[in-house]
Amino acid sequence: MSNTIEFKGKSWVVEVNSDKMLFGFGYKKTLFSEVSPFQKVEVVESVDHGRILLNDDLVMLSERDEFVYHEMMAHIPLYVHPCAKRVLIIGGGDGGTAREVLRHSYVEKCVMVEIDKAVVEACQQFIPQTASQLKDPRLELIIEDAVQYVARTDEKFDVILVDSTDPIGPAQPLFGEEFYDNIYKCLTEEGIVVSQGESPWYNSDMQKTLLTILHQRFTISSIYNFHNLTYPGGLWSFTLGSKKFHPLKDFQLARYEDEKMSFEYYHSGIHRGCFEIPQFQKNNLQSWIRF
Amino acid sequence: MSNTIEFKGKSWVVEVNSDKMLFGFGYKKTLFSEVSPFQKVEVVESVDHGRILLNDDLVMLSERDEFVYHEMMAHIPLYVHPCAKRVLIIGGGDGGTAREVLRHSYVEKCVMVEIDKAVVEACQQFIPQTASQLKDPRLELIIEDAVQYVARTDEKFDVILVDSTDPIGPAQPLFGEEFYDNIYKCLTEEGIVVSQGESPWYNSDMQKTLLTILHQRFTISSIYNFHNLTYPGGLWSFTLGSKKFHPLKDFQLARYEDEKMSFEYYHSGIHRGCFEIPQFQKNNLQSWIRF
Repeated sequence: MSNTIEFKGKSWVVEVNSDKMLFGFGYKKTLFSEVSPFQKVEVVESVDHGRILLNDDLVMLSERDEFVYHEMMAHIPLYVHPCAKRVLIIGGGDGGTAREVLRHSYVEKCVMVEIDKAVVEACQQFIPQTASQLKDPRLELIIEDAVQYVARTDEKFDVILVDSTDPIGPAQPLFGEEFYDNIYKCLTEEGIVVSQGESPWYNSDMQKTLLTILHQRFTISSIYNFHNLTYPGGLWSFTLGSKKFHPLKDFQLARYEDEKMSFEYYHSGIHRGCFEIPQFQKNNLQSWIRF
Repeated sequence: MSNTIEFKGKSWVVEVNSDKMLFGFGYKKTLFSEVSPFQKVEVVESVDHGRILLNDDLVMLSERDEFVYHEMMAHIPLYVHPCAKRVLIIGGGDGGTAREVLRHSYVEKCVMVEIDKAVVEACQQFIPQTASQLKDPRLELIIEDAVQYVARTDEKFDVILVDSTDPIGPAQPLFGEEFYDNIYKCLTEEGIVVSQGESPWYNSDMQKTLLTILHQRFTISSIYNFHNLTYPGGLWSFTLGSKKFHPLKDFQLARYEDEKMSFEYYHSGIHRGCFEIPQFQKNNLQSWIRF
């Protein structure tokens, strides 16, 4: 692999973030490697973080900490919308977001539009921890460019989750104005969109761009944070645009308490706390937060 | 340097966390390197994170993100205690914690007990961003093993901040029962201790040990999180033991609002939000949290 090194007598699989920083995990072996029409897709076995999915040498998830990203993407909007029956996932080929969405029994249909079937197949074969719920009969998997899907479809959704990679390569149009015009169109009058929102430390300009797009279209535009082990810097964000419901005032506490679902990262306190972003991030974004 | 590598045509200064993970920063040059009686102390210039202090190849701080650790260590207890006049810092040789403590005008005396004067001198010369406030006349710097200091002193403090390195090398006794017996003794009847509390991901056993020690001694034993760029995994904790005041119920909101101090990470929402720890960390620690 081009992104493995030997250091201190051990092997490492490493992600490099320009010339700023790098991080890596103890490396055992490569289980899957394929160059799809869109990107290089790899699954490796690590020493201490389980299996790791990489697209174009960027870490997408590890088995050890994927629950953070997937819980925080799915459960925040699903505990704000009073009853999201129809959910659209853009990207999310590993299946982790779908797995969390489908834990909510009132979700009747979950459409997942992934551009790259190599990602889905790699995870179905090597990372069943995230991909196993793709067999759920409520899930409809469409292999298609989501930019075209949201432009052409007449379907409406209560919640849309933009579970994309970074704004380089195939995911670049998912960070643009036209895409969000179509997202808005695909949402019901009470709809909520949550999108992968990049790093407060390393992508502050992109965070501003994303929030500006939401601010121009939605009643509520906000951002919340989580921290995992597999994205550069650890601290990461989701943006949230909502036509009606407020992420805190409309938090469905009674349902949350009634359901007693078991999570590994999310809970009602995290739901409130994650919207408290660091002051430096607030300073960068506050003009575009309406919340 | 033993902890620099070449990768993708660039130089990196790298910290290795056993065989689990590594992380590093673009490396320009080494400004200071000395083997003191306690540890190897180095200051390097990085590409994008300013100057970086390393003890025994472990990153202690970078100029880019040191504000997170230092603000979160100092301001949480100083906005819980109604008027902390006397503060003791254990370790903290870089001066960043003292800098934040001394921003509070009601602090009359701050004693800082650092074992290794090489750290202080390195930062005074090369990282004035953290060390410059060590000249404040309210600060008393004592170069001594803090284990001996807290055993011998009769002084009492309102707030004690254990700004230590990890429980290997010189800081090991700072994670033990006897040390906390003496910390308890050195606190007033309304005193609060905050200690560097390691990683929820990689040091869950040590977090349990630290919280157990606090639980056995203090009315309130709790833990709060922050995230920076320079500790393994990014997500990190402080433990808090308090004889009387509650970290949330006794939060000095009126004073906070009145003072209008300018922070880069901390604010009143972060004060509340940082005690909301992830579910997996809660599961590990909940028997020892009394809060």
